[in-house]
Amino acid sequence: MVKTNKLRYVIGADIGGTDIKFGIVDSEGRLYRKISLNTKALEGVNEVIAQLKKGIKILLQSSPYKIDGIGIGAPGTVTPIGTVEYPPNLPNWKIVNLKQIIEKEFSKKVKLENDANAAAVGEMFFGAGRNKNSFIMVTLGTGVGGGIILNKKLFRGEFGAAGEIGHMSIDFNGSLCRCGSLGCIETFVGNSYLVNEVKDSFKLYPDSKIYELINNDLPLITPKIISEAAKLNDNYALEIVEKMGSRLGFALASAANLTDINLFIIGGGVSGFGRILITSINKNIKLRVLRPIKPRVKVLAAKLKNNAGIKGASALVLFENKF
Amino acid sequence: MVKTNKLRYVIGADIGGTDIKFGIVDSEGRLYRKISLNTKALEGVNEVIAQLKKGIKILLQSSPYKIDGIGIGAPGTVTPIGTVEYPPNLPNWKIVNLKQIIEKEFSKKVKLENDANAAAVGEMFFGAGRNKNSFIMVTLGTGVGGGIILNKKLFRGEFGAAGEIGHMSIDFNGSLCRCGSLGCIETFVGNSYLVNEVKDSFKLYPDSKIYELINNDLPLITPKIISEAAKLNDNYALEIVEKMGSRLGFALASAANLTDINLFIIGGGVSGFGRILITSINKNIKLRVLRPIKPRVKVLAAKLKNNAGIKGASALVLFENKF
Repeated sequence: MVKTNKLRYVIGADIGGTDIKFGIVDSEGRLYRKISLNTKALEGVNEVIAQLKKGIKILLQSSPYKIDGIGIGAPGTVTPIGTVEYPPNLPNWKIVNLKQIIEKEFSKKVKLENDANAAAVGEMFFGAGRNKNSFIMVTLGTGVGGGIILNKKLFRGEFGAAGEIGHMSIDFNGSLCRCGSLGCIETFVGNSYLVNEVKDSFKLYPDSKIYELINNDLPLITPKIISEAAKLNDNYALEIVEKMGSRLGFALASAANLTDINLFIIGGGVSGFGRILITSINKNIKLRVLRPIKPRVKVLAAKLKNNAGIKGASALVLFENKF
Repeated sequence: MVKTNKLRYVIGADIGGTDIKFGIVDSEGRLYRKISLNTKALEGVNEVIAQLKKGIKILLQSSPYKIDGIGIGAPGTVTPIGTVEYPPNLPNWKIVNLKQIIEKEFSKKVKLENDANAAAVGEMFFGAGRNKNSFIMVTLGTGVGGGIILNKKLFRGEFGAAGEIGHMSIDFNGSLCRCGSLGCIETFVGNSYLVNEVKDSFKLYPDSKIYELINNDLPLITPKIISEAAKLNDNYALEIVEKMGSRLGFALASAANLTDINLFIIGGGVSGFGRILITSINKNIKLRVLRPIKPRVKVLAAKLKNNAGIKGASALVLFENKF
């Protein structure tokens, strides 16, 4: 934990495709009063913004602490002036200056970043990235996101869009990605792609423990189920995880060769595969990077788990001048 | 040209797998007294270093100008302390502190960078990168190199190895690259790979103008021949160039999505394909990058041609505190 003389408190909000999660977080990374509201993504931009305001208002009104500001992790590209552009899982959302809207509503300091960037900042101050100079955060979930920390600073690129490791293509003959390109790493390890691949192939493995775990009910397959089977040493599930590690090894090696950033921190839902996946990525990335990088490249599991989004968003305000 | 009150003069040396090229360059980018010596790469590290010293000595002794320092572009990884590590086209070269060796020999200021990084610095001060904030330099030749300029600074990454765009994989099922990975972009557009692909496939195109250009003598196929045929509107050659553009589009789009750097400058021998290749890469990268990046992504041809290596190496010293 980062030590301060006096605790400070902020609100963190993590906008996902399904839920917006909110919480009060103190400067030592402790979370209080977590709430969750439906994103109402399908009801349009104004409704999403109304839900965001509603959650913040609930916490502000009920907080026993003075709130120093509001940190928000949003999907899509977030520009330095605070616009959120074309978030892939919020339909009909084009370009909205969300920072301005929330500042105006609450007259509080507002910090806004892409959700994977916020996760990277969270890991830097509260998690596996503490005392590290540079790393690339990879968030595995419905999509595959990324955030780059370079010399303890968030690397935003020219216009704030940097870090989209999920849209590095590892197969120019590959499947169509929702971004419009082909063979992006997201099409191999993103939740839905992963589950579809399993549904297609696992009939060939009638002995797999996955059948028991889902009671033979195919629609019940989730990354969590695959992960559980892998932990039970199910050969088929282990094969799936190894394949994920191999694919991620290619994408992360390309990123390391391009940036000479040598530490990768893996978080997000799919990272529930845990040690097995991390071990596989470590092995595969070493097979792929250029020789001078081999001895120093390393992959770690994220430390912030369930509340990574809220804590990352909070860190944006708590440490605003420190990254 | 960068204006200075008084011209300054430096020696630039560009170490290639076959030749080391040397020249005196002034602070407005003019080249004087170019010489070239055999690298003697196969005779081992000491012989290469002897050749490098020899060329520098010749220019120092014959220069009518006061020489302010020596800039060197070297293959392989060049670390901030001046070691050159595992250059792929200099066999048996492991880790050598070349900066120290040359400084000691000549008691002059020595600046050393990876050759593609030097090319990037050259384009920034003398070429297509002037007045640009950030860009990624791509050098197409025997290998595919890269250098990153970010906010007018050379981006070296954590240990000086950044920029290796040639070793981003676009096909995890692809051919073995000399780096040990599979499907690196270098295996598609590097000189020898390219020529081999043509040799394999062009018998299917008996009407190609390439036959005339090489007098039916297959070993004579070079990137230059393919380029000439493309300029004569030969369909097969145009197809090859389009394929290069498509493959490069994938790799550069991955780089843009990761870094949010949106300008690419293409140089090196194979860039002799000129406008046709640049047009194709431009079209293909736009098909691949994420939506917020589409409107701003751009690919330009390098402006420094034959002497790019010497001028880039010279710029390392001429502008040492400016990048």
